[in-house]
Amino acid sequence: MRSSLVNRIPVGILGATGTVGQKFIVLLQDHPYFEIAELVASEKSAGQRYGDIVKWKQDVPVPASVATMKIKTTEDALSAKILFSGMDSSVAGPAETAYAEKGHVVISNSKNHRMDADVPLVIPEINADHLELVRKQKHSGAIITNSNCSTMFLAMTLAPLQAAFGIEAVHVTTMQAISGAGYPGVPSLDILGNVIPYIGDEEEKMETEPQKILGTLKNGGIEPAPFVVSAQCNRVAVVDGHTETLSIKFREKPSVNDVKRVLAGFSGLPQERKLPFAPVHPIIVTEQQDHPQPARDVWLERGMATIVGRIRPCPILDMKMVILGHNTVRGAAGAAILNGETYVELGYLES
Amino acid sequence: MRSSLVNRIPVGILGATGTVGQKFIVLLQDHPYFEIAELVASEKSAGQRYGDIVKWKQDVPVPASVATMKIKTTEDALSAKILFSGMDSSVAGPAETAYAEKGHVVISNSKNHRMDADVPLVIPEINADHLELVRKQKHSGAIITNSNCSTMFLAMTLAPLQAAFGIEAVHVTTMQAISGAGYPGVPSLDILGNVIPYIGDEEEKMETEPQKILGTLKNGGIEPAPFVVSAQCNRVAVVDGHTETLSIKFREKPSVNDVKRVLAGFSGLPQERKLPFAPVHPIIVTEQQDHPQPARDVWLERGMATIVGRIRPCPILDMKMVILGHNTVRGAAGAAILNGETYVELGYLES
Amino acid sequence: MRSSLVNRIPVGILGATGTVGQKFIVLLQDHPYFEIAELVASEKSAGQRYGDIVKWKQDVPVPASVATMKIKTTEDALSAKILFSGMDSSVAGPAETAYAEKGHVVISNSKNHRMDADVPLVIPEINADHLELVRKQKHSGAIITNSNCSTMFLAMTLAPLQAAFGIEAVHVTTMQAISGAGYPGVPSLDILGNVIPYIGDEEEKMETEPQKILGTLKNGGIEPAPFVVSAQCNRVAVVDGHTETLSIKFREKPSVNDVKRVLAGFSGLPQERKLPFAPVHPIIVTEQQDHPQPARDVWLERGMATIVGRIRPCPILDMKMVILGHNTVRGAAGAAILNGETYVELGYLES
Amino acid sequence: MRSSLVNRIPVGILGATGTVGQKFIVLLQDHPYFEIAELVASEKSAGQRYGDIVKWKQDVPVPASVATMKIKTTEDALSAKILFSGMDSSVAGPAETAYAEKGHVVISNSKNHRMDADVPLVIPEINADHLELVRKQKHSGAIITNSNCSTMFLAMTLAPLQAAFGIEAVHVTTMQAISGAGYPGVPSLDILGNVIPYIGDEEEKMETEPQKILGTLKNGGIEPAPFVVSAQCNRVAVVDGHTETLSIKFREKPSVNDVKRVLAGFSGLPQERKLPFAPVHPIIVTEQQDHPQPARDVWLERGMATIVGRIRPCPILDMKMVILGHNTVRGAAGAAILNGETYVELGYLES
Repeated sequence: MRSSLVNRIPVGILGATGTVGQKFIVLLQDHPYFEIAELVASEKSAGQRYGDIVKWKQDVPVPASVATMKIKTTEDALSAKILFSGMDSSVAGPAETAYAEKGHVVISNSKNHRMDADVPLVIPEINADHLELVRKQKHSGAIITNSNCSTMFLAMTLAPLQAAFGIEAVHVTTMQAISGAGYPGVPSLDILGNVIPYIGDEEEKMETEPQKILGTLKNGGIEPAPFVVSAQCNRVAVVDGHTETLSIKFREKPSVNDVKRVLAGFSGLPQERKLPFAPVHPIIVTEQQDHPQPARDVWLERGMATIVGRIRPCPILDMKMVILGHNTVRGAAGAAILNGETYVELGYLES
Repeated sequence: MRSSLVNRIPVGILGATGTVGQKFIVLLQDHPYFEIAELVASEKSAGQRYGDIVKWKQDVPVPASVATMKIKTTEDALSAKILFSGMDSSVAGPAETAYAEKGHVVISNSKNHRMDADVPLVIPEINADHLELVRKQKHSGAIITNSNCSTMFLAMTLAPLQAAFGIEAVHVTTMQAISGAGYPGVPSLDILGNVIPYIGDEEEKMETEPQKILGTLKNGGIEPAPFVVSAQCNRVAVVDGHTETLSIKFREKPSVNDVKRVLAGFSGLPQERKLPFAPVHPIIVTEQQDHPQPARDVWLERGMATIVGRIRPCPILDMKMVILGHNTVRGAAGAAILNGETYVELGYLES
Repeated sequence: MRSSLVNRIPVGILGATGTVGQKFIVLLQDHPYFEIAELVASEKSAGQRYGDIVKWKQDVPVPASVATMKIKTTEDALSAKILFSGMDSSVAGPAETAYAEKGHVVISNSKNHRMDADVPLVIPEINADHLELVRKQKHSGAIITNSNCSTMFLAMTLAPLQAAFGIEAVHVTTMQAISGAGYPGVPSLDILGNVIPYIGDEEEKMETEPQKILGTLKNGGIEPAPFVVSAQCNRVAVVDGHTETLSIKFREKPSVNDVKRVLAGFSGLPQERKLPFAPVHPIIVTEQQDHPQPARDVWLERGMATIVGRIRPCPILDMKMVILGHNTVRGAAGAAILNGETYVELGYLES
Repeated sequence: MRSSLVNRIPVGILGATGTVGQKFIVLLQDHPYFEIAELVASEKSAGQRYGDIVKWKQDVPVPASVATMKIKTTEDALSAKILFSGMDSSVAGPAETAYAEKGHVVISNSKNHRMDADVPLVIPEINADHLELVRKQKHSGAIITNSNCSTMFLAMTLAPLQAAFGIEAVHVTTMQAISGAGYPGVPSLDILGNVIPYIGDEEEKMETEPQKILGTLKNGGIEPAPFVVSAQCNRVAVVDGHTETLSIKFREKPSVNDVKRVLAGFSGLPQERKLPFAPVHPIIVTEQQDHPQPARDVWLERGMATIVGRIRPCPILDMKMVILGHNTVRGAAGAAILNGETYVELGYLES
């Protein structure tokens, strides 16, 4: 970790009034590298004080320094070089490109550019080297993305297993929290005492993003990892925390203990460099037979861990397990912040 | 359907104060064949009026004729020949055997005898012929069982597909309602805003019962169907209705439309004979992209249907889909009642 | 009850795609007087088949005869004389007036005209005589309203107590179901595991409507009943059923048994005339110490009852109790239908 | 605040495996005065390691130093002088007395001794002087209690208003969280999508405890404050946070602004002495029209605040408002810890 940043780096928040934007604000309070300097939201909020117009849905108050900031729009010139983007996908595509063309480094949580050939889709424990892709981008700035929230915990679990045993196929069924849908998001009449067995576009993301993340940087592009994902995505009445059941087919057949050992021992660049948002243990293996559970485990490692339990043989593929993570922290705003930290740590900002 | 039963058949309810027992009482009101004549519960309720001591958890009142009945115990001799059993599995094993030895026909929802070699595990749309097994039983009465609640909807979905295309393997992940755990059952602190990714014994039942149900009566026993099931069972904050995601591998590869056609066209003995509890359509195929949902669909066919949606190809096995059914109606008390109707309809009672 | 209507009366549904409109459609299936003939919704649905565009949120399917009806808009001339209105309050005011001017009888659940001096606010057990007010209306048709959903159960409880003992003041705190807010209504992030201690306009309605409903028809107007209501309204995570705690100050001091007797004995015109939607017992007094509960009692009398429990002395005012009713049945669509039945029964339609 | 305790005071936890006991353990981690030294639970856990047998329901892990502690029983002699008690009320009465007789200072959250004439019922912002009562106790140790969880927020709100304007009467309706009932506590079938309008004994506590807390120490006893409380208690589907609607009658009539000013300005001994668990602002007045809400506000001041909103006139009594607090922190374990801190701070431990 950079032992001290005498002057913190000013950053802007795009989509500042949305639920991801709010989470950026909560998580960046007192951040050792970054300091919130600018807030961008839609036209209709322009010029207003953030605290006056935001529909705040967090369980800590709006930080005082942020509450009084005036909201800017995408029309305004921004002075911060680094922009964390929680923009809605309906507008993020061209807006993020425009910021990158003006020289900004856009650390985005939006889906729009994730699968672009020259945009790194980064989980720094896994593929910090993919950041090199930004040098291929044709603008003076950069766009860096993190994965879909459900993909995050899947990719995190698969990465060490792929390295150790090779992965051929993964079945995944998700039980996803309502906070993943933003605000107003899921109507209560649709989810209270109910399950919705469909989330638009989610299965497609889970079936393609992991291969890019676990792919290999080669000839200036990413060669995707060659395994198959089959996803079934459901919304359940949970506020925070996506639970996923997996069944995995391996190239080399590990024992249950092999799998546990490899998962529990996983770490990467954020851990080596002790980045501020790095979980000490990116993967926690639980031995409690009815865990992981969102209501109990989602805040382990300050919401930055992937928790894996119930590792046991599968009579069809090879190994079954249950995984869990905090969808708006490790699965969204926290992921982007760790990407930002990695970007700074690796010296890209100065280069 | 028996055009009229001049005198309804008196039946007893075992485990009458439990949640399955309560459901028997609700569903048997005004039944054309059966009339509740006796209630059996634990020692401590003996001799008391049912309405005075039951912790009633239904959304219709206790029927007046039942409320005033005196509760009997397993010590008392019963006059009803047919006994519907919702006994707790901690006591059902020997108790049900004892009743059968005294000449009673025990139509049980309990798990204890389901896998006994001489006990039929019956879903009458699928294997009414398995009732023949009762002739192998060594007592003057009989024990007949229905499947586990989660198995019910899985077996119902698999049966026509097995007949049409042959099944090799099935992955299933369940999201099960709290009513499946009885009362007091799941503590609210464990499930409100939470998912519990474990239900004791449930995966074992789902991985073995379907093969017996879809098995073949041969040489006086059941030859189980030769497919593999891999189950992952979860509890979610839903009151009634188990949702399950499936991925199926077939011997012969059907198209999505083949699967829909075969499922929607399924029917069996209960439909032919127009039994009182028979759903007109035992399987309903929905085309709504975000269905089936417990809060919307669980009462289709008075809770006796299996609803199947989101039928689509699987990139690993062959076909994915989502299924749903009412766990305490079709998955428990209603299943037993339909077994009772089938038993009577096929003339076993007189034989 | 009209012993038979050889030809059922064709009716239209205004706001047919909303949650109240949907409830009208469910409840009017097989109605002995009324037959759904026309559906009106917003411009953007015009000309489309109801079943194709409605976001159906009921747990029974769209009736087949309704699913294929083409949707009309407020621009279209309607042939049905009676129109049940579940229009959103943002448009109901002038739209309902316009229909009345064209000669239609608008039986409305919307709030807009409730407090108009010449519009009857009717709960037929209490004030069927208020229907006379329609003769004061200056158009060829009529507008008839039912109360706010929370007011319904309060007014129903107060009416017999006012007649027997005189009421001076009532404190009420509500715990209201999400279905009362329509669809999409309350965002799940706002209510899952939460209480919202505010519902816009609701306290004002509860503090003024009961006095009109319990008022006296005099000189062609309504003299409101002279008691004071103080309301505190909350939204809770319940799908259907408003629970309310009351504390009442009486002019003459009744005993607990007096109150129970008067409430349990209440009935009115709908009961005398045996109207189709009339509950046999409009008020049910429960002796279970932890009832009424929405999940258990809301469907008593097919959702048309007011259930009262925990009647006990109050150390400040005189008597405390808890009341409950089904907010979208007795508190909305069912109330309007009973108003329509009363209107027909009393011969207004022919006059 | 005691600037430093070179050696932390060893404390024992009675009822250590229950939900209140668990909360003590979470909250006392890294406490500047107290250090957990002994754990007491029921006979059946005796001698086992805490981490092996506790059904842990917190969202942070069992502290490592506690997980390995061996559990003692009430038979064992304890070395810690101060004992925090979260014992179940079925056993707390004689057990706490026995500990006091052996010289221990029992800081109890249990209800058993609260209303004993010689036992202080303390909220240190209000009545730290009541601790003097312990000198009347006939044993070598002491018993000190905190209020019922629902009483806490009510008493906290009433205290400054009583001092400023005099209180004559208070209506309160509660909407209480499930965590207040312990574990297993409320069955999920009873509360998911439901309201239970009854909590055993709760109304009695709320109607008598505030008068003792706001009472006056006189002639070695407490003269209770002379106002009347009428309580109606309900359980709702919230995990943490009790919401209460109040209507208050004052002796002198304040304006809305008077009430806000007096509440927001309240503080007491814990604030003056800057005790570790003291909230900076014991009462927070919110101006957001739909707050306080448990899901948003319950963690203000680390769960130690009482949040008051919607202050407005009442047409029957004088002023209505909504209050909220964290029932297992400020309303239970946190309250006891603050009592312990006050006891130490005031020098009782040495005396």
